[in-house]
Amino acid sequence: MTETQFKKIGIFKCGNIGTSPLLELLLDELADRKDIKIRTVTTGSKMALEDVEEALPKMLEFNPDLFVVISPNTALPGPAKARETFAASGKPGIVITDAPGKRVKADLEKQGLGYIIITGDPLIGARKEFLDPTEMAIFNSNVSKVLAATGVYRIVEQEIDGVIYAIEAGQPPTLPKRVIDITVIRDNSVFSNPYARAKAMAAYGLAEKVAEIDALACFVEKENEKYIPLVASAHEVAQAAARLAEEAREIEKCNDSVMRKPHGKSGKLKSKTKLMLQPVSEGEQTEAGSRGS
Amino acid sequence: MTETQFKKIGIFKCGNIGTSPLLELLLDELADRKDIKIRTVTTGSKMALEDVEEALPKMLEFNPDLFVVISPNTALPGPAKARETFAASGKPGIVITDAPGKRVKADLEKQGLGYIIITGDPLIGARKEFLDPTEMAIFNSNVSKVLAATGVYRIVEQEIDGVIYAIEAGQPPTLPKRVIDITVIRDNSVFSNPYARAKAMAAYGLAEKVAEIDALACFVEKENEKYIPLVASAHEVAQAAARLAEEAREIEKCNDSVMRKPHGKSGKLKSKTKLMLQPVSEGEQTEAGSRGS
Amino acid sequence: MTETQFKKIGIFKCGNIGTSPLLELLLDELADRKDIKIRTVTTGSKMALEDVEEALPKMLEFNPDLFVVISPNTALPGPAKARETFAASGKPGIVITDAPGKRVKADLEKQGLGYIIITGDPLIGARKEFLDPTEMAIFNSNVSKVLAATGVYRIVEQEIDGVIYAIEAGQPPTLPKRVIDITVIRDNSVFSNPYARAKAMAAYGLAEKVAEIDALACFVEKENEKYIPLVASAHEVAQAAARLAEEAREIEKCNDSVMRKPHGKSGKLKSKTKLMLQPVSEGEQTEAGSRGS
Amino acid sequence: MTETQFKKIGIFKCGNIGTSPLLELLLDELADRKDIKIRTVTTGSKMALEDVEEALPKMLEFNPDLFVVISPNTALPGPAKARETFAASGKPGIVITDAPGKRVKADLEKQGLGYIIITGDPLIGARKEFLDPTEMAIFNSNVSKVLAATGVYRIVEQEIDGVIYAIEAGQPPTLPKRVIDITVIRDNSVFSNPYARAKAMAAYGLAEKVAEIDALACFVEKENEKYIPLVASAHEVAQAAARLAEEAREIEKCNDSVMRKPHGKSGKLKSKTKLMLQPVSEGEQTEAGSRGS
Amino acid sequence: MTETQFKKIGIFKCGNIGTSPLLELLLDELADRKDIKIRTVTTGSKMALEDVEEALPKMLEFNPDLFVVISPNTALPGPAKARETFAASGKPGIVITDAPGKRVKADLEKQGLGYIIITGDPLIGARKEFLDPTEMAIFNSNVSKVLAATGVYRIVEQEIDGVIYAIEAGQPPTLPKRVIDITVIRDNSVFSNPYARAKAMAAYGLAEKVAEIDALACFVEKENEKYIPLVASAHEVAQAAARLAEEAREIEKCNDSVMRKPHGKSGKLKSKTKLMLQPVSEGEQTEAGSRGS
Amino acid sequence: MTETQFKKIGIFKCGNIGTSPLLELLLDELADRKDIKIRTVTTGSKMALEDVEEALPKMLEFNPDLFVVISPNTALPGPAKARETFAASGKPGIVITDAPGKRVKADLEKQGLGYIIITGDPLIGARKEFLDPTEMAIFNSNVSKVLAATGVYRIVEQEIDGVIYAIEAGQPPTLPKRVIDITVIRDNSVFSNPYARAKAMAAYGLAEKVAEIDALACFVEKENEKYIPLVASAHEVAQAAARLAEEAREIEKCNDSVMRKPHGKSGKLKSKTKLMLQPVSEGEQTEAGSRGS
Repeated sequence: MTETQFKKIGIFKCGNIGTSPLLELLLDELADRKDIKIRTVTTGSKMALEDVEEALPKMLEFNPDLFVVISPNTALPGPAKARETFAASGKPGIVITDAPGKRVKADLEKQGLGYIIITGDPLIGARKEFLDPTEMAIFNSNVSKVLAATGVYRIVEQEIDGVIYAIEAGQPPTLPKRVIDITVIRDNSVFSNPYARAKAMAAYGLAEKVAEIDALACFVEKENEKYIPLVASAHEVAQAAARLAEEAREIEKCNDSVMRKPHGKSGKLKSKTKLMLQPVSEGEQTEAGSRGS
Repeated sequence: MTETQFKKIGIFKCGNIGTSPLLELLLDELADRKDIKIRTVTTGSKMALEDVEEALPKMLEFNPDLFVVISPNTALPGPAKARETFAASGKPGIVITDAPGKRVKADLEKQGLGYIIITGDPLIGARKEFLDPTEMAIFNSNVSKVLAATGVYRIVEQEIDGVIYAIEAGQPPTLPKRVIDITVIRDNSVFSNPYARAKAMAAYGLAEKVAEIDALACFVEKENEKYIPLVASAHEVAQAAARLAEEAREIEKCNDSVMRKPHGKSGKLKSKTKLMLQPVSEGEQTEAGSRGS
Repeated sequence: MTETQFKKIGIFKCGNIGTSPLLELLLDELADRKDIKIRTVTTGSKMALEDVEEALPKMLEFNPDLFVVISPNTALPGPAKARETFAASGKPGIVITDAPGKRVKADLEKQGLGYIIITGDPLIGARKEFLDPTEMAIFNSNVSKVLAATGVYRIVEQEIDGVIYAIEAGQPPTLPKRVIDITVIRDNSVFSNPYARAKAMAAYGLAEKVAEIDALACFVEKENEKYIPLVASAHEVAQAAARLAEEAREIEKCNDSVMRKPHGKSGKLKSKTKLMLQPVSEGEQTEAGSRGS
Repeated sequence: MTETQFKKIGIFKCGNIGTSPLLELLLDELADRKDIKIRTVTTGSKMALEDVEEALPKMLEFNPDLFVVISPNTALPGPAKARETFAASGKPGIVITDAPGKRVKADLEKQGLGYIIITGDPLIGARKEFLDPTEMAIFNSNVSKVLAATGVYRIVEQEIDGVIYAIEAGQPPTLPKRVIDITVIRDNSVFSNPYARAKAMAAYGLAEKVAEIDALACFVEKENEKYIPLVASAHEVAQAAARLAEEAREIEKCNDSVMRKPHGKSGKLKSKTKLMLQPVSEGEQTEAGSRGS
Repeated sequence: MTETQFKKIGIFKCGNIGTSPLLELLLDELADRKDIKIRTVTTGSKMALEDVEEALPKMLEFNPDLFVVISPNTALPGPAKARETFAASGKPGIVITDAPGKRVKADLEKQGLGYIIITGDPLIGARKEFLDPTEMAIFNSNVSKVLAATGVYRIVEQEIDGVIYAIEAGQPPTLPKRVIDITVIRDNSVFSNPYARAKAMAAYGLAEKVAEIDALACFVEKENEKYIPLVASAHEVAQAAARLAEEAREIEKCNDSVMRKPHGKSGKLKSKTKLMLQPVSEGEQTEAGSRGS
Repeated sequence: MTETQFKKIGIFKCGNIGTSPLLELLLDELADRKDIKIRTVTTGSKMALEDVEEALPKMLEFNPDLFVVISPNTALPGPAKARETFAASGKPGIVITDAPGKRVKADLEKQGLGYIIITGDPLIGARKEFLDPTEMAIFNSNVSKVLAATGVYRIVEQEIDGVIYAIEAGQPPTLPKRVIDITVIRDNSVFSNPYARAKAMAAYGLAEKVAEIDALACFVEKENEKYIPLVASAHEVAQAAARLAEEAREIEKCNDSVMRKPHGKSGKLKSKTKLMLQPVSEGEQTEAGSRGS
């Protein structure tokens, strides 16, 4: 594949959710994928309209084949501007956002954008008495572990991959329209042991609870005596969620049944479970009639 | 402070180390800082010269007041190009990188760039039999927890803040020249309990060990029978490191002595330890003669 | 105090919630209280109208000075019958129930009954593919630990005690009207360390999440492929909640600040924190001007 | 089966042991058993002769087909009165009690009562400097987890079920005569993994140790300096026992081999191990020649 | 102090208990004590009369100033021979042994030997289906942690030190006559936090339980179906004991109150608690009127 | 085999490493081996030339068929003297030592001694502000667990056994020449589950890190403010290593695949994995065509 055959993925991040920091890495974890290049432009934790308006042109100038925009609450003016811009670009676009995104599903449909709404990608406890850079990073670490180990990151990555494969094949892509709640974790299980799956679902349920408590703390309670204990408890829930997610994976390790799906150099997924074996391309498996665990 | 008074921080990421994903968020964790705006441009996990060369112009077009470039092994052609470009820009620049960066300290000095070399920001176990998007994300989650809880992220953020404050004051900034090893964790402790500090240092030591084992697995061993167990064990060490880092923080929680240093709206750090109290600006504390723990 | 001076507490249990099994023991944990006698009549796990109607007369024949009825969903015919009967008895009555009880608060007020509605006393995962006697008992063990360590049992016991003290003093009792949600755990903290409190609140939040998942599993999903993973995950959340609750208490142990409030022989509460010291009567403390932790 | 065909089980509780709080629930965990109704009368934590004498008539008036009396030390006057009364009732009776019950086995035999003596249902640390309602509840939570997960509750429930089935069949029941010690846990294992069984046995051994330490603290040591540390250590052992019991079950989860034996609506036990499969009636299994794990 | 002023301690080990492997190291942990030299002669795991008889002369030829003999069950012929020999040597002698030693206390007194009988130094699960070198070492590791962290090793070492100091001072030593049971752990606490002490006592209680279960497994049960689960469960108890002991110490770390008593070069103990401070000689402390924690 | 056919193993210990305390027990864990007798002579924690010179004659007088000398840094004068003496004895000799031993491998070869150099048998944190008898014992407990569970002790024991078998067969023994680093743990795995192996390798890697940190603390840093945190962190790493080693073994327990290799009475190893089965002699296994896990 020559240089010109690379498809370019443009990722625009404004503000931050738990799926944001590692998003581009999920698509090319070994940095050796020959079919795509990724360019990301970010406005940091801020997501005001003015930030987005300044940064968007750079994203457009990269001239990507696919736009992905990820932000908290996609209904806010900044993220809305990004959606509008990408919807108007003539290129396919995908919106990734957290639970409040459910309220603008109709808008997203109308804009012709794909979307992945992750109900378990929780609001952070953004109160100045509690959140400093260290606390913020630890929270993101815990959320990341939950979203990775429960399979959410895999769903996100495979949905984007699906669109990429269609673009590469010159076909009109089917854009994702998904709300990832606990039943999606259940039905897209990456676990062979049912208790590992149950623990992962539990971890995801906890992440939803984090969002609920933090929303109370950040948007309802006004006195610091009231909201400090709430944000602190929400982050404790996040830590408990990360441990449960880890427990789920430990069970799979114990059974040597951790499913791994690395990207091959062609961009297609390979698959394996037993640690000491080689991953095989998913096509090969199907041809051979074998089934992944 | 009016809009025009904002200083703009340009962060350029090519490839990924454990400090990369959350870097811009560390500088403005509450998204309400009135003195800076952050723009990030990223080439994803890839860091080849061609990737860097395509993306760099966008970074420059943002016209930042301060450049930060973060990458693995800064001696490689891609990161080297970024360094060269920023060194030539006339604006201050800071390089953040991992242990191999120690080998080009002289170059960095010559280029007039500041640098923060983090020996405990470990190489990932990048072997296709092991690393898929999920494993990559879990590894980053563990490394992030170690770097956050041991105080490394705080050092990084404060070094960058120091440069920002100088720029805001119209003074020539003193750029950081730091190699963060276990003795730096010891001497810049964020812990009031000495065993919490010891656990944090231990966690950091483990992160260094991860790098050592992964280097053996990725660069020395050639047979999969040999390197798969090594990358798997390195990631187990990363998980153990994250737990130790968490234990360290739990001790501080138990003593209600977690030090928190959120950014105030002015960009200056506030500080607090007891959870239910308000953070105070560090200047206030000094004036009042009180000392943080 | 002579035998005739004993007040008699009649507890009627139909069906089971996490507060049921130990309820009478909470009021006289050392079995040496000289002011009350407790008689309990129970219909086991069943709570149909016919069960309640057969058992209620025995409760009435004990001729208690105070009735307490505890059950799941107090709106169901069985518990409703018990409420009606006790409301008509001319003796004070208290209803203890779980979250669905919020829907009949108006009825409860009208009946003149006190009530304690515990939103974190969760529905069990009552699906025959999952729940056997062992699973049921383990779930109750976990819920019990959460409700004990977070202070819910203490609130329940002190509310009943308050009514008993009024009856003993010949005064009209003020019956409790409480909905115990996460903010009540926050505001009635039994913890001296704020992170212990946060962990306890987190544990309680998890218990609420158990109820939410189990309601989905027991009342919404119809296929076993769908509901089995849900009940299993709900019970994993319960286990995680118990661990968090235990962690909260361990912090207090570590600080030798576990608050203990045993009943004295007179029925009044004593109080202490340091393990090796004696409990003192709460009145004494006030007289001496000392403050509990 | 019509209403009149229900057999009625009368459970009389005086004082409390770890098997008491959930006893009636063990027999009908899904509340849908069509062959029995359960009525319980309790005197709370007190078990003096006068309490028992007042409460016993209500139990008798329910006119049960089977009596179960559960209490600590069945040799004490209160429980002895209950035994005497039920022995004289002409209906079958079963005594459930703790280790001191071993001393009256001859009496129990003479009275024609069945018995289940549980050496690992330990004395609580009933010292007023230590035991308050919260501590009492946490202790019961820990003991419950041990007795559930090690299979003791299953033995108790199956022994009672056996008597019920005989009564339903119109046959003279064989009453249980069992002392449940560590070798019974070993020989009635509910675990498929031998280390899970070993951990469960260890947990049970710890529960016996709790009893030994608490007896020293409650009956031998007289000074609070001496007995407070002992009761505190006994409850630590109980907590360690609960964790070991949980570990045992986690191993079975990891192997998807948790044995579950829910009651069918007919009252007969069903059985299953793999979580996602249906329980089958034990008769079916036998007919099909299959063996439980 | 010149070479000739060194006192020589002769330690004779036959067979092994948990206190044996590290015994000589406890007396000179920094290897810089200027007042004693230690010579140990060992017959390995065997302790038959013939082994002891061959090895004893070498011990005598070292001509020690103090004999210490450590073995399981000191009543057996091998250890008895060692006791007899040292009692006849004219030099002071101390016997260290496990619980069966209680049966020969009268003999020990008659022989004029000091003794330390450690009831929580448990019999190992010496059954060939279970015990291999790895299992043996892990068991010893767990027992060692219990005996170290609960303070047993400190008692042993201080008792021997006391005799050494007397010999050095030219005074007739008072030989120890101690049975170390759970009440000794309680009354010689090395913990400042009462829950840490309770956990340590609990750990020691568990170690006693190990002995009880292993005695049943090794001396009573004859069929491997019976004894294998017992030895396996005993070693699980040992592991749980080690964790509890570790938990106890972690509490002290959390409070920066770990008591440390290193030997000074003179052989006298120094003492400290806060980690970052210097140890001071115990005499100095007394002179200064300060009290150790 | 008659008494005279016993081979005698002479073990000389000067100073202490983590393999020292249990060394002789590893060779005869059940104390019933009929082919060897072990005699050990030790100079305690001290290892000066004068100590060794006084103690060596006793070792020689036992007239062993095989000498084993174990010490830290075998290049120091004391251990060097022992090596020289045993090399000159005409009997086979094996040196067991820690990482600094790598520097004298040429000498060892020249002396005709076998050697086992264990890079993960770490230097202790021998600073008087930190190390007291209790800390020393806990450290040894942790190191012991790592070396046992990762299989190091098994390698040591099998190497010595191999020499013994040759002597018994009247053949010239092949003396071991091994440096045990992380790749040896990998390639001599005692684990059937690859993640258990990875955790064990991780544990061993941590033990190597302990040595690195303690060397910095003991030999480089001169101020107590500098070295106390380092020794404390090294011992935290040791504790984390012990936990990882335990986790590795727990996985094998969970799969009932713990490999056990007890010594038979003949001195030959037997082997087994499933807990409830009998060990079989390794020869039998081969003859029967069965394969160990």
